[in-house]
Amino acid sequence: MTFLIDTLAILGFGLIGGSVAAACKARGVARRVIAVARSPQTLRSAYLRGFADVTTTKPTEAVQEADMVMLATPIGAMVGLVERVAPYAARGTIFTDVGSVKASLIEAVEEVLPGTLPFVGAHPLAGKEKSGVDAASADLFEGRKCIVTPGSLSTASAVERVVDLWESLGAEVVFFSPAEHDRMVAAISHLPQVLASTLVHAAASTRTSTGPALAYAASGFRDVSRIAASDAEMWRDICLANREAIKEALATFETKLAELTQALDADDERGVTEFFRLAREQRALYFP
Amino acid sequence: MTFLIDTLAILGFGLIGGSVAAACKARGVARRVIAVARSPQTLRSAYLRGFADVTTTKPTEAVQEADMVMLATPIGAMVGLVERVAPYAARGTIFTDVGSVKASLIEAVEEVLPGTLPFVGAHPLAGKEKSGVDAASADLFEGRKCIVTPGSLSTASAVERVVDLWESLGAEVVFFSPAEHDRMVAAISHLPQVLASTLVHAAASTRTSTGPALAYAASGFRDVSRIAASDAEMWRDICLANREAIKEALATFETKLAELTQALDADDERGVTEFFRLAREQRALYFP
Repeated sequence: MTFLIDTLAILGFGLIGGSVAAACKARGVARRVIAVARSPQTLRSAYLRGFADVTTTKPTEAVQEADMVMLATPIGAMVGLVERVAPYAARGTIFTDVGSVKASLIEAVEEVLPGTLPFVGAHPLAGKEKSGVDAASADLFEGRKCIVTPGSLSTASAVERVVDLWESLGAEVVFFSPAEHDRMVAAISHLPQVLASTLVHAAASTRTSTGPALAYAASGFRDVSRIAASDAEMWRDICLANREAIKEALATFETKLAELTQALDADDERGVTEFFRLAREQRALYFP
Repeated sequence: MTFLIDTLAILGFGLIGGSVAAACKARGVARRVIAVARSPQTLRSAYLRGFADVTTTKPTEAVQEADMVMLATPIGAMVGLVERVAPYAARGTIFTDVGSVKASLIEAVEEVLPGTLPFVGAHPLAGKEKSGVDAASADLFEGRKCIVTPGSLSTASAVERVVDLWESLGAEVVFFSPAEHDRMVAAISHLPQVLASTLVHAAASTRTSTGPALAYAASGFRDVSRIAASDAEMWRDICLANREAIKEALATFETKLAELTQALDADDERGVTEFFRLAREQRALYFP
């Protein structure tokens, strides 16, 4: 049996890292998966669930044996980790990541990686509101898109290997520039997260005589706010790393919101109807 | 067998009206349910599914035989309907409604109803993004809250009958003043709807080189925007009827959003983390 990757070291073993490992094992994509995490409990779980052949808390050891190194920690930890492990990696070892923000991350990684180590940024558009290896599953990427954002350290052969990896895990690969990626995910992922969490704050701070309005929230609210249950540290990292694109997305949001409030203030029945009707139609194009 | 209600006329037979009828039949709450709708197809479906004993397109005829009349049309049509049918109702016939907005509606209804006809406003906090009688079900109100908002035409015995009805359908009744109800639902229902629909507009208007950002939206976006698939005319009516409370909820939302953007601008890692962490915690109190 031949494998696309001989030894894949996954640094950070949460939902995404764990699911990549699970899918690599389930589909025979990598001969050997090395799981790297700080928590022995995470590593124990990774091993017992059959996601990893080898586990270690030492990233510097893991990268020495790897032909591909995947950064799957929270994005705030990635650059420091790359700086720490780069001296231990063999020439030509491909570095890649799964971070939700690309431009600022790639720029920082390129500053600390030597030119002998290719780097290819990637971001699978798959997630759950649950985090951690226990939420991982081998089919998380099936039918999902994976954005690949080549940069100045991306050799053609490294890009090809990373693309092959994601396609082997069932994802559809799409190429974006790092900046375009960041604008896109700000609109479809970071903006929804900010809205959902802010909505919870607003509903919790609206008091009624029998407690916060939030106590009366029903199924619609539950759906809208589901992602507010996501990991706070992860979202801190994402928001700080993609601040400018998120602010741009918020400005677009405010512009659209003003269209609605203006129609309301003008008693413009047709305008208000069209606002909701068009949103419904546009959503139905992608979520039929 | 004794029934809480002898003849219940439900004017408007969509998701809520249909589910009330279904639950009344399933639980033996009303001896006879008269379904009133403009569409013969809706009435046919209501009859065939066993939700109604009698169907008619003529509300003026239905109210003559009813001891309780429930307004379940879109709220924009309720006042005109009350005005039209009131002369046909027998003295003491209880009028009630299921509208999502109370203060402006009750005020307008009280202007057109004679003092001989008691009116008790109510609002079951249950819904789906699907509308119409085909989405109706007998268990829609089980375990849900129903807000009852007595007004100047609410006699004590009429309030008691309406409360008994909703409790018989499995709901937990809570009393609110109309204005307090409107502020509460603006925060937990109308604000989420506005955010969800506006989010779709923002994501659809963010272009990438391969189409709108919306084309890349994944499961998180799907959840946040699910209610944007709701009926546009219903939301037009709600937003216009509850405009002031919705604007107040939007102002609260903007205040909370500013707390996040200020923390981002200040590179305040702790502040950003706390924002997401607190939202997660507050949500978990009500959606564990």
